[in-house]
Parts: sequence; structure tokens; C-alpha cells
Amino acid sequence: MAGRVSETDPDVGSLAVVGLGPGSAAQRTPAVSAVLAAATDVLGYQTYLDLAGPFAAHQRVHASDNREELDRARHAFALAAAGARVAMVSSGDPGVFAMAAAVLEVLDQADDPAWHGVQLRILPGVSAAQGAAALAGAPLGHDFCALSLSDNLKPWAEIERRLALVCEADLVLALYNPRSKARPDQFARALAVIRAQRAAATIVVLGRDVGRPREQLTVTTLAELQPEQVDMRTLVIVGSSRTRRIERADGGCWVYTPRFY
Amino acid sequence: MAGRVSETDPDVGSLAVVGLGPGSAAQRTPAVSAVLAAATDVLGYQTYLDLAGPFAAHQRVHASDNREELDRARHAFALAAAGARVAMVSSGDPGVFAMAAAVLEVLDQADDPAWHGVQLRILPGVSAAQGAAALAGAPLGHDFCALSLSDNLKPWAEIERRLALVCEADLVLALYNPRSKARPDQFARALAVIRAQRAAATIVVLGRDVGRPREQLTVTTLAELQPEQVDMRTLVIVGSSRTRRIERADGGCWVYTPRFY
Repeated sequence: MAGRVSETDPDVGSLAVVGLGPGSAAQRTPAVSAVLAAATDVLGYQTYLDLAGPFAAHQRVHASDNREELDRARHAFALAAAGARVAMVSSGDPGVFAMAAAVLEVLDQADDPAWHGVQLRILPGVSAAQGAAALAGAPLGHDFCALSLSDNLKPWAEIERRLALVCEADLVLALYNPRSKARPDQFARALAVIRAQRAAATIVVLGRDVGRPREQLTVTTLAELQPEQVDMRTLVIVGSSRTRRIERADGGCWVYTPRFY
Repeated sequence: MAGRVSETDPDVGSLAVVGLGPGSAAQRTPAVSAVLAAATDVLGYQTYLDLAGPFAAHQRVHASDNREELDRARHAFALAAAGARVAMVSSGDPGVFAMAAAVLEVLDQADDPAWHGVQLRILPGVSAAQGAAALAGAPLGHDFCALSLSDNLKPWAEIERRLALVCEADLVLALYNPRSKARPDQFARALAVIRAQRAAATIVVLGRDVGRPREQLTVTTLAELQPEQVDMRTLVIVGSSRTRRIERADGGCWVYTPRFY
């Protein structure tokens, strides 16, 4: 499995924001693995560092809290500007509700020319919605949207407004950050918005810890879904009016959204 | 790079629908590479087979036209039901506007119990929108949608209706199959719908052949975008009201959508 030369050469004074994919190393691109192997410094949330490792003795590993994204991004630029080869790890795809936007927010606000001189790269990965979808079949096989239900950075009224519009557009919904301990009631409010527009029999897929040892896939309906089935480690896919299920010989089912309308 | 045992074991009488990612082998997951190496039969559009290969002399390679998706899926089930280990290749992610939905459409309509007995798996990959986004920065860093502009399988009026609603929701738009030779004028009509709702200065990213030798990235605005800049090998990302650009020291720019609203 050969990477391109530009992806495996040592990058002095560089920052690569890399996506680990859903979990297992088998779902991680060789380009990302090459960056991790060549890094002098690896930054990330501890859970993601555990997925990305093990690391060699000479590699410096900097764990931080998952909520300290901007501090972590500033730390990464400071190390890279001083000559380090920095890898910043995200689960899934760093470009989808993850670290790449935080890194660019920090760069956008940075006055230090050395930070702007850092060789920056974003390396994509398979995002959580794709991992859950592949396990279920092809629920994202036609028009879909990816929305974050976290109101840490966005007013809740805007989240409800968007949900109503994408339901009206009959898109499949991939919902990230659906329900935290700090705001357990909001998912029920989001569900109420969706239920007002979609049929009770609409298929819902819940993927929890997809690609990791405790992987769990649940196929249910909008009527049967209970908010307590969902937490921050769950990716929720709500089908469109066209999303269907096929019973499997082994007792499970496949879920897919036809390409035709 | 160890795959899980279940991903590398020979699967007799199996069909794996695999995503090659944007193009280069460095962006392809080891799980997909393992399936390709173990397959007795590989099916796909010739362009994707060229990306997936080379194959060993004992592997049977079945090229088909890109528009013959249902025929290709039926052929795959027939081979697998007869005992072959079949790999069906898609570019990007097979679950996103690609072969996984076509395969499940065929299974849904199949009467033959042997087809339902085939061990079926979908293996995700990095989709075109993610490849283009990573090259540009993080334009998909917040709420976004993925829409196909092809009206081969969906009425054009429905495409325009969806575009208007997702623009109203202020989502970033990732547009697949934007403009074909058979319907060159439709992209201009889609643009008119978007321009009616989004500011002239809205950032637009065009990724053409991302991850392949002729890779080309263009950052422009909604006002400046010309339909002739876009073809079927182009992935179009239209920013939200919040999408921003950062000038780079090397003369280019980064594009990102902040996580906060």
C-alpha cells in the first residue's frame, strides 16, 4: 500500500489534521497512518489517541479534553511553528463536525506570521454517518443532510428551524451530537419537530460506537424511538419518505434509500 | 495494518460493495484493499476498475457501462449466489450516490432465495465531497447537505424545491452529478435557484478529479461561477452565509465554515 511521496515525506514545521475513521485501523486510510507514523507530536482527545496509537517512544503525545478544541488547535500551531511535525487526530472525518474547522478558526484569528507559515494539511476519513450507514445498508443512498444537534455553538431555535426545513425537503437526516448529559431533553424536542412532518413508520437507524468493540446497530421507527436510546456516542439516521427496509435471511434487516424518486 | 479477521477471511458466496475513496490508493481503507485482494470476481465501471487495479491473473474482472447499475448489481448477485467472492467497486463511498443503493434495490426485488443468502457487506470510503472539502480546508465543518442534481431518477421540479429549502436552512451544499453533456442547461437553472437566496459573495469550491492525477481545485464566488466551469467530474460546494476564506502565504486560500453560528 504505497502512499504518494508527498504524503509520506517528513514535513518539518507542519500540522496535519487527520481523520481516524469510525474506529478500527482497517477503516483508516494509509495516508493518515503514514502521517501518524511520521509525527513528532500527536494531539487529541484521549479516546481518539487510544484509537490512533500505539505510538513510538520518541513521539510526544498530548492529550486534552474534548471540549478544549480551540486551545488544542493553538497548541498545535505553536508546536508546528517551532518546527515540529504535528498530527492532530479526530475520529471520523476531521472536516465533518470535528477539528478541521476549529484549526482554521484559530488560523483565521492568528496574528503570528509563523503560524501562517506552517504547512497545513487536512486528511479526510470515513465519518460516523458513513460507518453507521454502511452497517445498515445504504440509508444515505440519496439526498441527505448532516446536522449537529449541539447548541453549544448555535442557538436552539436555529436547530429547530433547520430541522423543519430539511424534513420539508424530504432529505434523509444524519444527526451528530444528538443528546448530551448536559441537555438530555433537547433530543426529545428535535424529535417532536421531525415527528410533526414525517410518518410514524419512518425508518430510524441508530449506530452506537460503530467500528469499535462495542458496536451496536438498531433499526427502529420514528414512532418507536425513545430518546433514552440515544447518547453522544450515537449517530442517528432518520429516513426520508422513500427509505425502505429489506428483511434478511439471518433475522436482521437492510435499510436503504432508493436512488429514484 | 491489521484488518479484523472478519474483514480478511475468504467469503465464499459473498458480495462486498466497496468504496475506493477519491482516487489514490493512499485514500483507500485497508478493509477495502483486503476485499479487492481476496475477490475472485471484480465488477465495476471501467474508470473505477482502473483505479482499483491492478488485479492478479486469476481474478476475473467484469467492466460495464456506468449507467448499467441495476444490470451490474444483478450480475454480482448471480456470481455470488454461484459461490464467487465478488467485489463491486464504487468511487468515493458506495453509500453516497453510488452502487450500494442500486445493489439493495436489486435485492429488494429479487425472488431467488440464493440471492438473499449471499453474504452481503458494504464497505465505506471517503466520498468526493470530503476529498474536495479537505483540499479546500473545512467547508463542510458545520451543517451541510449532499444533493444529486441528476434528474435521471428524480423530477427536476423536486430538485429545485429541495435546493430552495436547503438554501433557506442556510446549509452548506455539496452538489453531486452537477452537469452532464445530456442536460448542460440544468446546472444554470439550479444556480438561479441558489442565487435567488444566497449573497453574490457566497464562497463556492469546485473540486475536479480530486485525488487523481489531474486534480484541480477552484475557489470562486456565487456571482463569478460560470456553468461551463462544471462537469460531471466536478464536485460543487456552495458555502452557507457563514463560510469564510483565509488568504494563504503561498497565494492560495483556505475555505471553512465555522462551527459556531
